[in-house]
Amino acid sequence: MRINDNYLKLEDSYLFVLIAKKVKEHAAAHPEKDIIRLGIGDVTMPLVPAVIDAMGRAVAEMGNAATFKGYGEEQGYAFLREAICWYYAKKGVGLRDDEVFISDGAKSDLGNILDIFSADNAVLIPDPVYPVYVDTNIMAGRSITYVNGDSGNGFLPLPDESVKADIIYLCSPNNPTGAVYSKEMLKIWVDYARENGAVILFDSAYEIFVRDEALPTSIYQIDGAKECAIEFCSLSKTAGFTGTRCGYTVIPRNLIRGGAELNKLWLRRQATKFNGVPYIVQRGAEAVFSADGMAQIRKDIGYYMENARIIADTLAQLGIWFTGGKNSPYIWLKCPNGMSSWDFFDHLLEKHGIVGTPGAGFGSNGEGFFRLTAFGSRENTLAATQRLKEIIKCR
Amino acid sequence: MRINDNYLKLEDSYLFVLIAKKVKEHAAAHPEKDIIRLGIGDVTMPLVPAVIDAMGRAVAEMGNAATFKGYGEEQGYAFLREAICWYYAKKGVGLRDDEVFISDGAKSDLGNILDIFSADNAVLIPDPVYPVYVDTNIMAGRSITYVNGDSGNGFLPLPDESVKADIIYLCSPNNPTGAVYSKEMLKIWVDYARENGAVILFDSAYEIFVRDEALPTSIYQIDGAKECAIEFCSLSKTAGFTGTRCGYTVIPRNLIRGGAELNKLWLRRQATKFNGVPYIVQRGAEAVFSADGMAQIRKDIGYYMENARIIADTLAQLGIWFTGGKNSPYIWLKCPNGMSSWDFFDHLLEKHGIVGTPGAGFGSNGEGFFRLTAFGSRENTLAATQRLKEIIKCR
Repeated sequence: MRINDNYLKLEDSYLFVLIAKKVKEHAAAHPEKDIIRLGIGDVTMPLVPAVIDAMGRAVAEMGNAATFKGYGEEQGYAFLREAICWYYAKKGVGLRDDEVFISDGAKSDLGNILDIFSADNAVLIPDPVYPVYVDTNIMAGRSITYVNGDSGNGFLPLPDESVKADIIYLCSPNNPTGAVYSKEMLKIWVDYARENGAVILFDSAYEIFVRDEALPTSIYQIDGAKECAIEFCSLSKTAGFTGTRCGYTVIPRNLIRGGAELNKLWLRRQATKFNGVPYIVQRGAEAVFSADGMAQIRKDIGYYMENARIIADTLAQLGIWFTGGKNSPYIWLKCPNGMSSWDFFDHLLEKHGIVGTPGAGFGSNGEGFFRLTAFGSRENTLAATQRLKEIIKCR
Repeated sequence: MRINDNYLKLEDSYLFVLIAKKVKEHAAAHPEKDIIRLGIGDVTMPLVPAVIDAMGRAVAEMGNAATFKGYGEEQGYAFLREAICWYYAKKGVGLRDDEVFISDGAKSDLGNILDIFSADNAVLIPDPVYPVYVDTNIMAGRSITYVNGDSGNGFLPLPDESVKADIIYLCSPNNPTGAVYSKEMLKIWVDYARENGAVILFDSAYEIFVRDEALPTSIYQIDGAKECAIEFCSLSKTAGFTGTRCGYTVIPRNLIRGGAELNKLWLRRQATKFNGVPYIVQRGAEAVFSADGMAQIRKDIGYYMENARIIADTLAQLGIWFTGGKNSPYIWLKCPNGMSSWDFFDHLLEKHGIVGTPGAGFGSNGEGFFRLTAFGSRENTLAATQRLKEIIKCR
């Protein structure tokens, strides 16, 4: 018996687990302190009424023999896949409903998709980045090449033509930096992927936050992307589903590698190692895409984006370099006074009771940077920016 | 770019997909025909009132900012893990709540658990067996050795001491055969696993159907199992959760391989590639283990087991060899007249409008056998047994 030794190469603790531990210890030691959490990207607003109503009806259906639902359709219910196709049509992207797979969240699919690729593929990952891309490839023993994001390129790196890649991760709007690729920049990535015969794994979990109509909200808005890209979406931030669990993954039928349709490989993987999302949750997700649901979630997104504006304006006033905050719920700032990410984390927590996320947790290029999120309440966001102004004044 | 070539070694179609296709085509060609489905093991009774009430309350909580739940605890909510520990305590098995992992179903976990083991491990799988064990190992490129179930050993094979194994699959009560290992037989497997340093993956999805108190309902009722076994459980058949999706996996803390706690490796895997089960569903699952929930589901299980008795008694009257039907919802019978499994499937469907599952779909030792399930309605079960009696009379 041998375990998968690659697990031993992983960093000891998942970033957010470590942060939670530090915060818990600090809160226990200082029970009187009012801690404002702008760290982990969890939402705070409840599910919208359209979703609650749909799930309430679905629960009632499950209690009645005539309307009870057992195992669902392999890729998710047609009613939900069709609603998602309609959402894409409004973006100018035509999809067939068999190109959409309903999942329990983008995180699961971003990890599990690697099952259909060979372990010897060369992986290209931007740094800094959402840690799941890196950890899941380490678990599978793949070698990783990083492409550097930094303040020089606004944390929007472009491909180095001399580097060979098979699997390319892109996340736009980006977690953690909040930076958003333009259509022209994504076109460069799509062309590079096609020249290399590579596949882009495009994490589109934050597309709903894009306000600027010139910016893409799906990689399929770029010519040629259907021949080289898989897109991962989530309702976690879109509709507050972090504890309700539903996402979707798009694999175009004409995405062929090694003579095989990746869509069919993924269907085989999911039919064998997954058994679908709860009917109740799929009905809730369908309601997100209804006219009422869309109007309700856009109101909530507007609330969060006003928080983002407040944080971004504060940083601009203070002369601190940052990205994000305009078409993204994340604000990525340079730590003041040349502090390291974890030093700034400890300083903010211990002195000012603000929890953020150390940039170094997202890769070596994140060192010296720090992530704040717009998912708090207005009151907490205002209080945190007030404290930030005081910190900076005192430096 | 190379795809995972192991996928090309898989059989073309997942068993139940193929059956569904055949049934759909037959129904389309004969719309007048009344088809009785005793094939795929899906339940037909609605969720019990205790579960419906709990989920209704949870939906309401999700619509209110004060009670809304975002990301949950990594391993599942403590309220559910504690309820499961209490359920195990009643079986005489002491567990800590950090030994229990909440999942979206046993199928997902049975497939994904392989991530933590090396690809070069030797795998031992009974034949016939639930196809997921075989397919997930083929996908990972592992070599498989089979241990033969047949009418001689009542489809309860025991280990061959001369065969070396690292990973051993056992399913009891068995899918597809309905056979149940005694404690003495499981002890032989546990001893064999410990001598080999192997890990038993024990699929306990049907434990609730065991009526005979002398039979084990958890492998941890066997001395030494906590040092060699992982147990996979599901609410799919226990409480009608096939479309609601919740299961749990137990990894004892003192299960160590290669110097690593398997519990910690699995926690790392799940924290990285999974994001938990919906809060609403976890509240529903908690209600299954309440006093009311338990009483209600036991009534439903009693209904299904009366169906099993009706099928088993019919086969006994007809002098057909079978296993199962007493402590299991499955009945595994020898096809009459020496017919092959798929010939009997076609014959039953085309001549008599009964859908069952061909034994050959569960492995080569399943050839010539056939699976019926107790999950239909009483009316359909009685109608099907009546038709069976007519078939056999006419042979």
